[in-house]
Amino acid sequence: MSKDHLKYLEKKLNYNFKNRELLERALTHSSFVNENNMEFYECNERLEYLGDAVLGLVIGEYFYKNFPEDREGSLTKMRAESVNEKALFFISKKLNLGDAIKFGKGEIKSGGRNRESTSADALEALIGAIYLDSNFENAKKIILYLFQDFLERDSYKSFNIDFKTKLQEEAQKSSKKAEYKLVREEGPDNNKTFFTELYLDEALVGKGKGKTKKESQQEAARDALNRSGKFV
Amino acid sequence: MSKDHLKYLEKKLNYNFKNRELLERALTHSSFVNENNMEFYECNERLEYLGDAVLGLVIGEYFYKNFPEDREGSLTKMRAESVNEKALFFISKKLNLGDAIKFGKGEIKSGGRNRESTSADALEALIGAIYLDSNFENAKKIILYLFQDFLERDSYKSFNIDFKTKLQEEAQKSSKKAEYKLVREEGPDNNKTFFTELYLDEALVGKGKGKTKKESQQEAARDALNRSGKFV
Repeated sequence: MSKDHLKYLEKKLNYNFKNRELLERALTHSSFVNENNMEFYECNERLEYLGDAVLGLVIGEYFYKNFPEDREGSLTKMRAESVNEKALFFISKKLNLGDAIKFGKGEIKSGGRNRESTSADALEALIGAIYLDSNFENAKKIILYLFQDFLERDSYKSFNIDFKTKLQEEAQKSSKKAEYKLVREEGPDNNKTFFTELYLDEALVGKGKGKTKKESQQEAARDALNRSGKFV
Repeated sequence: MSKDHLKYLEKKLNYNFKNRELLERALTHSSFVNENNMEFYECNERLEYLGDAVLGLVIGEYFYKNFPEDREGSLTKMRAESVNEKALFFISKKLNLGDAIKFGKGEIKSGGRNRESTSADALEALIGAIYLDSNFENAKKIILYLFQDFLERDSYKSFNIDFKTKLQEEAQKSSKKAEYKLVREEGPDNNKTFFTELYLDEALVGKGKGKTKKESQQEAARDALNRSGKFV
């Protein structure tokens, strides 16, 4: 972790730390403090704990506001999908976080630098550090900036739950037959929107739209599961 | 839920809502919207989801700052103990929240007004409503005001984990003998502080102080578990 790398990170985040120690701690893996006889609390574990809570609120509020009719179970699910290890690793790559982390030598040998969990944890720690260094509103701005594309493109969905499969499982439990009907297409060929309705034994249970047929079906399944409260 | 009761609540919270609908929604139980053919999202469930995240960050930060050497597992544990149903119900009683909630008639008949979970949920919803109505800093101030005594008196401990029992379980796993030694007492008779050291097979593994011998032993056990990373 060179001074240049820290500068690069600050530039990427569009944020300058008042307390550089916080930034450095956010990027210090436990293996480094263990090997160097430092106190355990000098690694990024505690900041990760704090950042996780900051992230939970910011992303939670995003879904609260963008899905004004979704139930708690659906909101919880989407949030969990957006802040799980895979998702955080995806975001951490924008910042080349893996290269910035200080490891112990043993950890490097065993491939620690490439472990997804390590970068994901460091991203949470970094968010915790920004929160402590400034305030909630600043941390929120930076989080939304980092996650914007990911959230707006609904990328969290592709990382995770397959709503159609889940719907199918629920349908089987009650011995019902699920049918997806494409009811409408809108827009020009290169920017179409598809509208799908989902029927269970011929009763309309969900509606969805999307940029592909498949996406509109997934959305219809999500809608149906949400209405039935079957998310949790 | 009368207008008087809402005023009473605002006075107790030392906060006046700009958007009274948010306050009313925070106090609307799902049974009320179900019985009155309202949309589900008009009950307090979604606000509870948001308030839970606000609370998680504020209480999380409290423990982060007040236990600067504790590991993530210990912080997570103390926070969980402070925001579980029992703890939230305890806090909600200060506000007489149970009396302020709008229920469906069926729910009232089945004793809903006295259910601890309902008041605990409404408290989270209320916190979510304050956050939306103002901002994070305001919500934080009000949460810390509501939780101050509870946190400072370490009340969350009495609601929950018995660290000595947990330590004993861990000691048995490794066939070690735990011994608590009272090493010092300080202060006058009516305000003593006790200092205890905890030994596992004669190795010093934890230290604790407290206002009673028992409390100092609990603290020593907590300290030992924390150092060993055995919290999670």
